[in-house]
Amino acid sequence: MNDVLEQLSRVLEARKAADPDSSYVASLHAKGLNKILEKVGEECTETLIAAKDAEHSGKTDDLVYETTDLWFHTLVMLSRFGLGPDDILAELSRRFDLSGLEEKASRET
Amino acid sequence: MNDVLEQLSRVLEARKAADPDSSYVASLHAKGLNKILEKVGEECTETLIAAKDAEHSGKTDDLVYETTDLWFHTLVMLSRFGLGPDDILAELSRRFDLSGLEEKASRET
Amino acid sequence: MNDVLEQLSRVLEARKAADPDSSYVASLHAKGLNKILEKVGEECTETLIAAKDAEHSGKTDDLVYETTDLWFHTLVMLSRFGLGPDDILAELSRRFDLSGLEEKASRET
Amino acid sequence: MNDVLEQLSRVLEARKAADPDSSYVASLHAKGLNKILEKVGEECTETLIAAKDAEHSGKTDDLVYETTDLWFHTLVMLSRFGLGPDDILAELSRRFDLSGLEEKASRET
Repeated sequence: MNDVLEQLSRVLEARKAADPDSSYVASLHAKGLNKILEKVGEECTETLIAAKDAEHSGKTDDLVYETTDLWFHTLVMLSRFGLGPDDILAELSRRFDLSGLEEKASRET
Repeated sequence: MNDVLEQLSRVLEARKAADPDSSYVASLHAKGLNKILEKVGEECTETLIAAKDAEHSGKTDDLVYETTDLWFHTLVMLSRFGLGPDDILAELSRRFDLSGLEEKASRET
Repeated sequence: MNDVLEQLSRVLEARKAADPDSSYVASLHAKGLNKILEKVGEECTETLIAAKDAEHSGKTDDLVYETTDLWFHTLVMLSRFGLGPDDILAELSRRFDLSGLEEKASRET
Repeated sequence: MNDVLEQLSRVLEARKAADPDSSYVASLHAKGLNKILEKVGEECTETLIAAKDAEHSGKTDDLVYETTDLWFHTLVMLSRFGLGPDDILAELSRRFDLSGLEEKASRET
């Protein structure tokens, strides 16, 4: 499971130059940054709604699904700027003392 | 870098039961699900703004920072439901043929 | 111009019971609250993007269009709960001293 | 009630040039467009959460409050671009046949 993000990152990089008709990711890039950001916002909204529904139903399938959609579209967004999951994991590692002893203060939290 | 998410997941699990005064994550849990979801929504907005600024400035530091905040707060949200990054990575893996040959259709995309 | 919101409110109320195939608003109600909220979130994202684009281009047509979409879908949401624009205008009036002399503190701002 | 938006619009216009220490709206303008957009995004998230809570509790006070916050911050955003509620009401009027006979198709809906 560990290298799922790394593999997905390579797939997303390859799709940037693919035929828009052959790939959902390529079609997003062809439509431009705003379309990618609209998807990030949509999936965030659907994640919030799924979390509220899970609170009441106890069923978390949709929450996993929508959070995956959200992460996925943030990865498409990052790839557009030449960034990838390693940049996020490095920042998470930097920000937290992952020995579990101490939570470092983030800039605003 | 590979096990950053796994280590962070263990830290987040431990913080669920910590003193709210001792930890930002514990304080979020003490305030409840709505507060955690408000942070997810805030960080998504800040990610969108950072992406638009990066489009014009070419500087991506803020975009990495805000996307990290967004992922982090989705992990806090997931941990509240007994879920973690493995659930997201499993769904990403299931959804994509990570041999890189083919992008499987997702439910709505 | 003053009674646009009042007239629109009456139209939205009538559409709640209309044939879903005959009206966009009726089709939203048939799909349920989550669909209406997804549209509110989508239009908010599009408003944010349009504002960032207007900042750089100086052109505000899209910003007016997307903000209108956002207000419109919040009115559909309110009508689902038996609420309307008068409830929002009353709260705005209550919160602000509209003589222009003083801005009352809101709950969290 | 009809001219609440008009009066508020005049207040918001006057606050653009006010001392940031004297007014919440002036302090938002001093912090810049991104801060105003962050507030729009935050209030949208809180509106979505309030709507889901109202669905279960039947209590709509928070929904009215958060939707008012959302409209208010969109008006601050519009005023920064020299726009106001009349621009939104004109677009709503243009888009809908407010005789109640017919709902005109919008660009994407």
